[in-house]
Amino acid sequence: MSVVALCGGVGGAKLALGLSRALPPQALTVIVNTGDDFDHLGLRICPDLDTVLYTLAGLADPDRGWGRRDETWNMMEALEGLGGATWFRLGDRDLALHLVRTQRLRSGDTLSVCMDAVRRQLGIRVRIVPSSDDRIETRVLTDVGELAFQEYFVARRCQPRVRRIGFAGADAARAAPAALEALTCPDLDAIVICPSNPFLSVDPILAVSELRRALIDRRAPCIAVSPLVGGAAVKGPTDKIMRELELATTPGTIGRHFAGLIDGLVIDRSDLPPSALIPAPVPVFATTTLMRTLEDREALARFVLDCAGRMARGTV
Amino acid sequence: MSVVALCGGVGGAKLALGLSRALPPQALTVIVNTGDDFDHLGLRICPDLDTVLYTLAGLADPDRGWGRRDETWNMMEALEGLGGATWFRLGDRDLALHLVRTQRLRSGDTLSVCMDAVRRQLGIRVRIVPSSDDRIETRVLTDVGELAFQEYFVARRCQPRVRRIGFAGADAARAAPAALEALTCPDLDAIVICPSNPFLSVDPILAVSELRRALIDRRAPCIAVSPLVGGAAVKGPTDKIMRELELATTPGTIGRHFAGLIDGLVIDRSDLPPSALIPAPVPVFATTTLMRTLEDREALARFVLDCAGRMARGTV
Repeated sequence: MSVVALCGGVGGAKLALGLSRALPPQALTVIVNTGDDFDHLGLRICPDLDTVLYTLAGLADPDRGWGRRDETWNMMEALEGLGGATWFRLGDRDLALHLVRTQRLRSGDTLSVCMDAVRRQLGIRVRIVPSSDDRIETRVLTDVGELAFQEYFVARRCQPRVRRIGFAGADAARAAPAALEALTCPDLDAIVICPSNPFLSVDPILAVSELRRALIDRRAPCIAVSPLVGGAAVKGPTDKIMRELELATTPGTIGRHFAGLIDGLVIDRSDLPPSALIPAPVPVFATTTLMRTLEDREALARFVLDCAGRMARGTV
Repeated sequence: MSVVALCGGVGGAKLALGLSRALPPQALTVIVNTGDDFDHLGLRICPDLDTVLYTLAGLADPDRGWGRRDETWNMMEALEGLGGATWFRLGDRDLALHLVRTQRLRSGDTLSVCMDAVRRQLGIRVRIVPSSDDRIETRVLTDVGELAFQEYFVARRCQPRVRRIGFAGADAARAAPAALEALTCPDLDAIVICPSNPFLSVDPILAVSELRRALIDRRAPCIAVSPLVGGAAVKGPTDKIMRELELATTPGTIGRHFAGLIDGLVIDRSDLPPSALIPAPVPVFATTTLMRTLEDREALARFVLDCAGRMARGTV
């Protein structure tokens, strides 16, 4: 088997973990959103890559949804005493990764090379690949003006009303070599779009033209997993943004959003008609998509892989 | 009163604290060695400045001799897990200062401006000034070759035999504006060379020609405090280095080392003749220089200021 997953943070990382358990580790490549990345306190921070990394390494905090478990916050406390910027929280353990990455990037490594070294060091056999080694910055145009992603997401807690979302740098960005290689591999069996925010987490990946082209030209089936459960996001502002963009908070909207790029859509049972607007432009598979336990993650992964397998065999 | 202290790390910082208690805070300027400064993990680390800062802020670890009290080491632990360099220990709370400094320096602030902002933020009214805003790097020529200071001091624990000590960049370095201003102030009442390592901590300050010239041209008395107690250093490699440089481990050697720059030498009673080689080239004042308690620090400071006052009045 050879599978590529496209993935943002929390929800996406959960399914990536499920896939890593349902597949031989060398069979999986996770392409991760870099649109949330930014520089802070002189450090290069890559929230989604780190969430995927910590999740696959078994180091993620189970409750917080980001950062490491058994985390402490003594640097932040001292930073506050020094009058530093404390709006973005960096845990003490988490800092090690930012320091290592920033130093490697500054010494000339690409983000891909750096993250590959780190995931190997943490014993992760799944490939974790940024969408691009070039900088892509998600910009959120809101009713209070254009905001950098973290300014919108963390500093302003997603409160401003979203009008449009853009990805600065994406037009000129090359795909990370391993990302393009994985997506265009002739032996690829399936592509999975994880249940991440389509607008904030998946779109910045698809904004890299080489990756979008590879997805358009795919030979393996591509299955998206809707991030909605009962018309709402499990975590994060997906449904809020959908409403602000005047889109119905239904899996049909998700399916249409990925039109031309996917062959099937996995949705939560709670979003089946008549509660939601179906049909999507592709076959829809309903299951329980809420991933509370490790078993849930693996079960959803197996379900998605099974859907892809059925599509590949033409038995849908 | 207006007093300038020249100072390295631990021992020097103790006397600086004593002076800050014996004087109105605005009367004191502490000029601190920057020869130990280096870049590590992409951060600018200034060990002596930070020791003075933490000591005067009441944040210094009372036992370790460097870094902050109530420190934790979770970043270091995580760094080890990532295969990062762990030979130089950075505490979680301490990291905040390195991050703030590195970011300010990168944004164009001088080290002086940066440290002045930080000390004010920490409520320190004494001026803490680097010897120079230009980079000065202490290089230790040893029997195993030339070593960067931290390589000699931390990584190799001062074990290599010292042959010569140099200060790369010092020839071209300008004095930090506030350092030169303080040392050349016509109202200056006393200059104190704190009981820091003369070779590793005071010499890099004196290697800045503008500061050495200001000291040579001084009108206020300059009193050095010997770092020896009973012919040995209280902490650090001072006496080891003296032996390796084939110098007697006596206050006389300290006095001769600063010949032309000082007007008096304060030594520990235990180093009085016949146990040590006296006379030094300047008047010697004996007292208890070991600073165990806060009261010890203040008492030594008052003793030194009294010696300076007596010299100024010509009553020695």
